[in-house]
Amino acid sequence: MNSAFFSDLLSTISERGRTLLRLKTWPQDAAGRAGSLIDLCRALLSGRGEASGLAMAAEVFARYRTLDDAGRAAFFAALADEFGPDHDRLIAAMEKWRADPCDAVAASVHYASEPRRLELFRRLNRAPGGTAALVEMRADLVDELRINRGLTLVDRDFTHLFASWFNRGFLVLRRIDWSTPANILERIIRYEAVHEIRDWNDLRRRIDPPDRRCYAFFHPALVDEPLIFVEVALVEAIPGAIAPLLAGERVQVSPERARTAVFYSISNCQRGLAGVTFGNFLIKQVVEELRRELPRVETFVTLSPVPGFRAWLARAEDAPVEADALAQLAALDDSAWTSDPEAAERLRRIVEPLAAHYFLKARTPDGRVVDPVARFHLGNGARLERIDWMGDLSGKGLKESAGVMVNYLYDLDDIEKNHEAFANQGEVVASGAVKRLLKGERAIFGIAAPSFSQG
Amino acid sequence: MNSAFFSDLLSTISERGRTLLRLKTWPQDAAGRAGSLIDLCRALLSGRGEASGLAMAAEVFARYRTLDDAGRAAFFAALADEFGPDHDRLIAAMEKWRADPCDAVAASVHYASEPRRLELFRRLNRAPGGTAALVEMRADLVDELRINRGLTLVDRDFTHLFASWFNRGFLVLRRIDWSTPANILERIIRYEAVHEIRDWNDLRRRIDPPDRRCYAFFHPALVDEPLIFVEVALVEAIPGAIAPLLAGERVQVSPERARTAVFYSISNCQRGLAGVTFGNFLIKQVVEELRRELPRVETFVTLSPVPGFRAWLARAEDAPVEADALAQLAALDDSAWTSDPEAAERLRRIVEPLAAHYFLKARTPDGRVVDPVARFHLGNGARLERIDWMGDLSGKGLKESAGVMVNYLYDLDDIEKNHEAFANQGEVVASGAVKRLLKGERAIFGIAAPSFSQG
Amino acid sequence: MNSAFFSDLLSTISERGRTLLRLKTWPQDAAGRAGSLIDLCRALLSGRGEASGLAMAAEVFARYRTLDDAGRAAFFAALADEFGPDHDRLIAAMEKWRADPCDAVAASVHYASEPRRLELFRRLNRAPGGTAALVEMRADLVDELRINRGLTLVDRDFTHLFASWFNRGFLVLRRIDWSTPANILERIIRYEAVHEIRDWNDLRRRIDPPDRRCYAFFHPALVDEPLIFVEVALVEAIPGAIAPLLAGERVQVSPERARTAVFYSISNCQRGLAGVTFGNFLIKQVVEELRRELPRVETFVTLSPVPGFRAWLARAEDAPVEADALAQLAALDDSAWTSDPEAAERLRRIVEPLAAHYFLKARTPDGRVVDPVARFHLGNGARLERIDWMGDLSGKGLKESAGVMVNYLYDLDDIEKNHEAFANQGEVVASGAVKRLLKGERAIFGIAAPSFSQG
Amino acid sequence: MNSAFFSDLLSTISERGRTLLRLKTWPQDAAGRAGSLIDLCRALLSGRGEASGLAMAAEVFARYRTLDDAGRAAFFAALADEFGPDHDRLIAAMEKWRADPCDAVAASVHYASEPRRLELFRRLNRAPGGTAALVEMRADLVDELRINRGLTLVDRDFTHLFASWFNRGFLVLRRIDWSTPANILERIIRYEAVHEIRDWNDLRRRIDPPDRRCYAFFHPALVDEPLIFVEVALVEAIPGAIAPLLAGERVQVSPERARTAVFYSISNCQRGLAGVTFGNFLIKQVVEELRRELPRVETFVTLSPVPGFRAWLARAEDAPVEADALAQLAALDDSAWTSDPEAAERLRRIVEPLAAHYFLKARTPDGRVVDPVARFHLGNGARLERIDWMGDLSGKGLKESAGVMVNYLYDLDDIEKNHEAFANQGEVVASGAVKRLLKGERAIFGIAAPSFSQG
Repeated sequence: MNSAFFSDLLSTISERGRTLLRLKTWPQDAAGRAGSLIDLCRALLSGRGEASGLAMAAEVFARYRTLDDAGRAAFFAALADEFGPDHDRLIAAMEKWRADPCDAVAASVHYASEPRRLELFRRLNRAPGGTAALVEMRADLVDELRINRGLTLVDRDFTHLFASWFNRGFLVLRRIDWSTPANILERIIRYEAVHEIRDWNDLRRRIDPPDRRCYAFFHPALVDEPLIFVEVALVEAIPGAIAPLLAGERVQVSPERARTAVFYSISNCQRGLAGVTFGNFLIKQVVEELRRELPRVETFVTLSPVPGFRAWLARAEDAPVEADALAQLAALDDSAWTSDPEAAERLRRIVEPLAAHYFLKARTPDGRVVDPVARFHLGNGARLERIDWMGDLSGKGLKESAGVMVNYLYDLDDIEKNHEAFANQGEVVASGAVKRLLKGERAIFGIAAPSFSQG
Repeated sequence: MNSAFFSDLLSTISERGRTLLRLKTWPQDAAGRAGSLIDLCRALLSGRGEASGLAMAAEVFARYRTLDDAGRAAFFAALADEFGPDHDRLIAAMEKWRADPCDAVAASVHYASEPRRLELFRRLNRAPGGTAALVEMRADLVDELRINRGLTLVDRDFTHLFASWFNRGFLVLRRIDWSTPANILERIIRYEAVHEIRDWNDLRRRIDPPDRRCYAFFHPALVDEPLIFVEVALVEAIPGAIAPLLAGERVQVSPERARTAVFYSISNCQRGLAGVTFGNFLIKQVVEELRRELPRVETFVTLSPVPGFRAWLARAEDAPVEADALAQLAALDDSAWTSDPEAAERLRRIVEPLAAHYFLKARTPDGRVVDPVARFHLGNGARLERIDWMGDLSGKGLKESAGVMVNYLYDLDDIEKNHEAFANQGEVVASGAVKRLLKGERAIFGIAAPSFSQG
Repeated sequence: MNSAFFSDLLSTISERGRTLLRLKTWPQDAAGRAGSLIDLCRALLSGRGEASGLAMAAEVFARYRTLDDAGRAAFFAALADEFGPDHDRLIAAMEKWRADPCDAVAASVHYASEPRRLELFRRLNRAPGGTAALVEMRADLVDELRINRGLTLVDRDFTHLFASWFNRGFLVLRRIDWSTPANILERIIRYEAVHEIRDWNDLRRRIDPPDRRCYAFFHPALVDEPLIFVEVALVEAIPGAIAPLLAGERVQVSPERARTAVFYSISNCQRGLAGVTFGNFLIKQVVEELRRELPRVETFVTLSPVPGFRAWLARAEDAPVEADALAQLAALDDSAWTSDPEAAERLRRIVEPLAAHYFLKARTPDGRVVDPVARFHLGNGARLERIDWMGDLSGKGLKESAGVMVNYLYDLDDIEKNHEAFANQGEVVASGAVKRLLKGERAIFGIAAPSFSQG
Repeated sequence: MNSAFFSDLLSTISERGRTLLRLKTWPQDAAGRAGSLIDLCRALLSGRGEASGLAMAAEVFARYRTLDDAGRAAFFAALADEFGPDHDRLIAAMEKWRADPCDAVAASVHYASEPRRLELFRRLNRAPGGTAALVEMRADLVDELRINRGLTLVDRDFTHLFASWFNRGFLVLRRIDWSTPANILERIIRYEAVHEIRDWNDLRRRIDPPDRRCYAFFHPALVDEPLIFVEVALVEAIPGAIAPLLAGERVQVSPERARTAVFYSISNCQRGLAGVTFGNFLIKQVVEELRRELPRVETFVTLSPVPGFRAWLARAEDAPVEADALAQLAALDDSAWTSDPEAAERLRRIVEPLAAHYFLKARTPDGRVVDPVARFHLGNGARLERIDWMGDLSGKGLKESAGVMVNYLYDLDDIEKNHEAFANQGEVVASGAVKRLLKGERAIFGIAAPSFSQG
């Protein structure tokens, strides 16, 4: 990493201005502070902001950081109420449109309808560390949004701006390994969201051995802050369970012998960038990277959780489960079955077809595939390759997915076709093996699959 | 410079996709190629673009580069005509506004009125080297604009997007010196627009000695491409002429003894980024940098050309020149006066007050200060500090400005105040010395200054 | 850190050669392997070594790593016995000297008497990673030396060569902080020899806060391997105890307010470089660094252990302790006194003068200052500034030094003078406060100090 | 390049000390300055040098730089006369040897006979920039050596030390291209010794196109200073002439189509490192590099000058030229033949066999191959592959070698064998084609080759 490249010269900016601004009195109460901050934001949008904008922007962030919950709530409310578009200008533009509905006037409407907070955010971004500060501010907004739905407009503007600024063309892919700076590794530990990294030794096991890889996207303006990262295991064949991959004691695979790369964990890092998608690009670029470095690796596959499976099972109306089978599924509530091969086998014969149904047939009321992880990978153009019975026997795995995991296969030659089938026809592209499980379902339950699909 | 940081991993992307796409036939004629390219752009905006967008974006650029003039003209015309906003969606949003003119609906109007080419540009940017390719495309558009004014909308969208992407918060200030990579230095030679750099030796004289500095802004996505750079000389006192600064043989000043930093050349590098302003930020950050490194340097000043002066003089109606003086000004047409001290002194007494008038009183028909360089620095909050008689006796200097140069002073404490005076009241903030020259003008011409000002 | 700079291109060297060499059979027994290795070393010194020396050198290291204890013992013995100087050549050179005892002939004697293993080591160093491999080999030799004193000559040659190769002019000072790569930080944890670093959190407390610093020397050929490092605390006044510096919960000092830099731990990292001194240079350069960065820090001082104090106290013949005091010193055997203020005060009055005596008067049989840490800092030109009663109440501190620590003061203006006084007259330069403690000793024990000085 | 890694922290060292030392008076005359400098060197070797050695070493260099020719002559003479070994210590060690001629005593003799200037050089090296300053000092010594042969001992010590410090294991191979910092490229222009680089455009033609490469060795302590570099052209087949390779207008070869890498220029850069060999290692590592990057390149060959050929031809006693042929060779004195195909063909039939003889048979009085470039490549284990008639028709090429060039082939599989044949039996390993030319010689001149071999 070369953090210094981006940070050294920037740090000295605008200290002068900040000192000057700070001489003014700073209110003690939340409302006063929010109001004062809003005044400063208005000044930043004025001509003064053009002359000494960096200093003012830095001061906005400095003051923002002193706000408490009430202050932030007031500040965000003001952002929503007072930094919308200039209505007069917008009305004038729309008048013109009525007279002359051409693209040129549409453009006037477009720029006239831009909320003023977008320009405010752009000016704030000029401050040293401005991008990071805006991403933090958005993270606060995401929290506040739960309380005040009126902030949705502000949130949409943030998302729109960040989607443009964090365009994939500006991201940098970096490999994360044991020679990565500790401050970045610390964040990898903190941000891992799928299979917790317990400590530095656990981290090292995931990034240091030659059959393990980790890659992250960075943005030049967010120094040392990964945006998203993926953990990869190089193995011989597609794995069916997570535990052996994460085991402290395991036999390493020489990278030359590996034929399969397993993406077993992918985590977004920045709450302030929620809604801006990186995962699609990350997986595909890592596939390209690995193909280049290890030409013998030909299979690129995930080992993924199935977070919605048991919740779906529990909703009787959705799952095509007969009473008898339902009774047997009760065994899932106690993990005892995992150490009883016969019980496990009984469950397997019920759960596997149900899982196939869950992916291939079940839909949400608005017609979408139920599983969010499935939606992500299928939307990326991956294929549902295999259902892994007893793939995750951790507490979380049992509770969320009856221990089931799945593999999504990324075949670059088919990605576009798969994506279109999924996006346009809602078709879940799946391997024959998975489809056969569905036939098993019919055999077992004696029911016609279509009856479970939604309109 | 750390170009490698941004370039190494990116280069391999999407080669696969490009090969696939190229198998399709590529028309031979301009119209056919432009049409085929536009088809590909439409596909990139569709669902397919989501699945394999990087490959398609890279292919768009690859095909674009094969276009000839006619092909580019057709392509840009299609960008203007076919990638505007979705009129139906826009009309619907405006209908809603009539019923409910609130910010939420205004936001719908805003997003509905966005030209589709903006999203196209954002998707194109995802390709490896996409940002550079878009900047090149815009440079072509700037050329085409002279022929086809209908492309103004496309140009405005480019400018809007680039202003957001090249936000000052994403720029990196780098010092340019003799240890800078040659490929960057080569561009400095090429892009210098004020005082030509003749060869590598001339370049070295400007960046290598301890009393010379050069700084440039870079953007992480434009590897090795300076956006704008400024050349600085460290001297003891404010200089009144450019030749001694650029002389091959000159006495160097120890940086410890320097008290004044002279910004004697500032050049924009990217034609494709015309309209996005960097100069203001560059000058101010370099002032901060130098203050930090050399605390004894207290005066920050430009040595600037006056490109509009003689043209203004020649427009009789503008310049307050009496017949007698006018006759004497004719001497300016022949550079002989520069080697005749008496003639020079005669001219000085006429030209200096006129120059003061040019800056302080003369205005364009729409009320702006005449000199474009003056508008830039005064708009930044600088003060017109001194008029330098015989400051530039080069052919260009004599021809454009009668050999006159000026110094603009950047005093960070006054920048905001100066800017506001200029922006709001149109007041040109000038030193007493410059103002006194104006009084001299009155004495000489026996005329009241106000009579020359414009309404 | 820029490890890659040194490692990328080197790694591919000589793979070709190694493969060829490996085809030969490699004995299974220790003696056979050592013999075969020695044969390869001889070949490396021959003409063949000139043609394909890198491959052969790499092969020597590859084979060396397969040796077991017995194999290494045999290999080192052969290095000692068979790679000494060429006796015939040496005798001839000495004959010449008898006839003509001039410098030119002395040079012949010098080069003729060079052990052949020095050239062997130089050729081995050419292999990729050769320097690191030689340092490891030397570490093995240091172990073997305890068993076979006959290896002293080999060890001396290693030391001589390493002292030249690791000349201070080739070392690079790097700051170690929380953005340092994890593989280097891991070594800092492992190599800390004075105050153990318990885990990554403990490490972070020592390198990340703004009032903590850590610096290390690196050598370009030992990628990612610190040679020596020092931990520094920035504080207001000279500290008298280690525990507050290392406490998990403590009030940080703003670097601007710090007036004192405390070197509280300095650790050598490479056993294979034992005997090559770095500490002297490291401390002085860090002093220069801190002076430059923090001009207000004016006092540079250590907080050092006194490892030999209690052992010296226990040798009755050395310590000037009267019977009564001796009885009281017995209380040191039980740490109970540390929580009994009165007992502690009684001990203080006895121990402090004894400590002053220990430093100022006591000498080893061969006339040296007893304490090894004192010898190091006094030899560097530091001054014994203060004796810190109850400075280290850890188990180790109580056991080794009765809880006493000391501060050595580095005043760059006096270093040369202090060093000369110590080196030439054996004078321990100490502050008045320490000297006064010695007077206290006289008062208490009623004895003339000189009588305790060494014979 | 990452020069900063090695330079930033080092620069501040020892400024303090230097100021102190400079207060002393500095003589005005050469003898006085040399004497004063020698005094300082003695002090550096004393105990004071241990305490504040860096400052003193820096001061030695600062003073050395003020010396004029006479001062340097006196300084070097003193280095030779007064910094030899300690004779008393040496005599004592030799006495011991007489009593006990074992390796341990030989080691004493070795270390006792070490000239004190070696330790002086090691201490000087500790100064910031010390290594570079020592290399410069050696360059001065090389000049002085022509006048004062008594300095040979000093020169030998420098060479011995530098050979150890610039061990190949400490060198870093870097590619030189158009993104290399200008200060390094400037040195490439200056140091090119085989085919002059005329200006920056010429340089760019040699390093920027994809079918051109340039590699250099660097040493971490000589920041930005290449030690040796080689220029490489990627081509399809072995070239027979230099001009097409260097032509401004030429057809580039795609690296994928290249099958042959031609080393057409190799230049040592540091006069102060004369006698320390790098070329052997550089060529072999570049071969490894290129094999790795471009697996289809299978032939590695030089295109080399034959600097001694015409001088040898002119020495009648050496060349096996009959009177008739000799008369024809006179045509070489005028370059007219190069544009007369018939004359050229006549010359070819005489010169080619003579060239074969020159390489294969001719020897210097002490039995070595005559051509120095041949000795270098054959000593490296290369094979004389081809004689290139009219390979270099430049003025220099015609004058030195009758326009002849040659190719030496580096086949890594044969390098060791070739080297041994050359080193042990003096055999010039050559291709059949070259050997056949020799047969041609016999046919033409009717003489038995052995008769021309050296006495």
